[in-house]
Amino acid sequence: MSRAVELAQVWRGDLQESVHMGHAVICNGAGEVVEAWGDPELVMFPRSSCKMIQALPLVESGLELSESQLALACASHNGAGVHLDLVSDWLDDLGLAEGDLRCGSHMPRDEAENHRLIRAGESPCQIHNNCSGKHAGFLALSQHLKAGPEYVDADHPVQLAVRAAFEEMTGETSPTYGIDGCSAPNFATSLTGLARAMGAFASAHRRDGVRDRAAARLVRAMATHPVLVAGEGRACTELMRAMGGKVAIKTGAEAVFVAILPEQELGIALKVADGTTRGAECAIAALLIRAGVLDAAHPAVARFWNTPVLNCRGRTTGWIRPGAALA
Amino acid sequence: MSRAVELAQVWRGDLQESVHMGHAVICNGAGEVVEAWGDPELVMFPRSSCKMIQALPLVESGLELSESQLALACASHNGAGVHLDLVSDWLDDLGLAEGDLRCGSHMPRDEAENHRLIRAGESPCQIHNNCSGKHAGFLALSQHLKAGPEYVDADHPVQLAVRAAFEEMTGETSPTYGIDGCSAPNFATSLTGLARAMGAFASAHRRDGVRDRAAARLVRAMATHPVLVAGEGRACTELMRAMGGKVAIKTGAEAVFVAILPEQELGIALKVADGTTRGAECAIAALLIRAGVLDAAHPAVARFWNTPVLNCRGRTTGWIRPGAALA
Repeated sequence: MSRAVELAQVWRGDLQESVHMGHAVICNGAGEVVEAWGDPELVMFPRSSCKMIQALPLVESGLELSESQLALACASHNGAGVHLDLVSDWLDDLGLAEGDLRCGSHMPRDEAENHRLIRAGESPCQIHNNCSGKHAGFLALSQHLKAGPEYVDADHPVQLAVRAAFEEMTGETSPTYGIDGCSAPNFATSLTGLARAMGAFASAHRRDGVRDRAAARLVRAMATHPVLVAGEGRACTELMRAMGGKVAIKTGAEAVFVAILPEQELGIALKVADGTTRGAECAIAALLIRAGVLDAAHPAVARFWNTPVLNCRGRTTGWIRPGAALA
Repeated sequence: MSRAVELAQVWRGDLQESVHMGHAVICNGAGEVVEAWGDPELVMFPRSSCKMIQALPLVESGLELSESQLALACASHNGAGVHLDLVSDWLDDLGLAEGDLRCGSHMPRDEAENHRLIRAGESPCQIHNNCSGKHAGFLALSQHLKAGPEYVDADHPVQLAVRAAFEEMTGETSPTYGIDGCSAPNFATSLTGLARAMGAFASAHRRDGVRDRAAARLVRAMATHPVLVAGEGRACTELMRAMGGKVAIKTGAEAVFVAILPEQELGIALKVADGTTRGAECAIAALLIRAGVLDAAHPAVARFWNTPVLNCRGRTTGWIRPGAALA
């Protein structure tokens, strides 16, 4: 990771206290690199940033799916009521139940639901998992394919279809995979491969194949349902809202971020080398401002870009700023 | 931060997913650099890692203080019952109240107390602040000095005394200060200056000045009350326990860690450039193992060094390992 460049800075008073180094690539709809920072050949895991790729086989299956279901299939959601209700309804529609999920459970990020569980002395269920929408989509596809229940196994028909779509969209043979936090395989790619896939999503609306229509539907679903993709206060939700439904963005664990710019037919992928979310959020905001799709003066932007660091008495003690490479 | 070296690696499956670069210095009791990684001249904020320095003027004042109070003055505590009771008692002893603190409040990390507050619909108070022990110590010294109530102002007699002690222990004139999360000034130093101060703490028991006796008392208080310095499950607490009271260690925000090794008369200071705690914990464990004071086979060590990364179903998906520079 020696070619990493400075993507974000953390200041306290007049001293730079911390730094986030990393890599970023912008590709056009033809899969060509338009601009790159750091090492565009970095082999990395997209983690949840590639959920729209993982959802392609589902949409291409021809199953009838609402736009909300498509957005949820691409989501890393907060586990708020709106997410829980929609995933529950989807499982009901499939004639399946929470126990059919294979994502495991964790406490929801949504404060109201989190506190409700604590007050009630309840444990979270698998529907609370931020990936439960993606997993409901996996179950829907698995049922359609008449495949077995262990849909997160790497050799399950669902994951074989995901791998094929992933390799076609990135234009690369995936060299390896890891097991994600939600137990699904997560296929590795170069950062350029991930940006190339996002460029293909960004230009899909210009083409008319089965994949193109599926990709364009997923982009529209994400961009027009920002709260379903993440939740109140989250970077994906707040920045997509600030861009007025014109751009889809998605974060992934370990500081990955992607953006799909349909009007510009550009895809962006970035990875902060240290895996820190604050660095990835600042960097994607900087790249979106630079691309002319995000207004730096929008009130939501200051939560992620040139962001004040507050102490326990609400005093500004420092700033998170874009790094020299993006300033 | 271009001279940073690899202090910790994050793996998923067979691919290194993230990296933590940084700097580390080991000094002896004479203030000489014994070994260094990265840039020993890095100017940085020690944050909470220097609480034992900030406590020196308190101890040197001659006020009667229990060993528990000394440990709490150096603590970034979890806000568990034991911490809250001791800080409350200390304020009572001073004839002061929670409202005299200037640290602000945040939710406690201790799960039992955190959930109790949520269930009761209560907000945390300033005693819950992880720095409330340090602030109780500041109040005790301020009272002793007959100084005013705004003890976190940089020109208050308490902070002037802290700055003097800080500059004497680091052997440097501090070039600047920032405001910490708890509103106290945090003085900058080179990383070597911080390691030099820790070397002075480590060798204090060999000398017999007022400062030396104060420093040795603080080291003993930290090393023999690990749970007061942080809390159950925390790296400071668990690793100090694993070292059997022979070594004092302390973390600071933005991935600073220091260690005081009295038998070896060595001080260690490290800073992970990106500010990520998991990297600093892995790196300090690696340096303590390397120094022969921490048994790599101790069950507590695997929580911070060569640590499995588990997913939501409890499956090991990766590892946090020491970086090439420390392996």
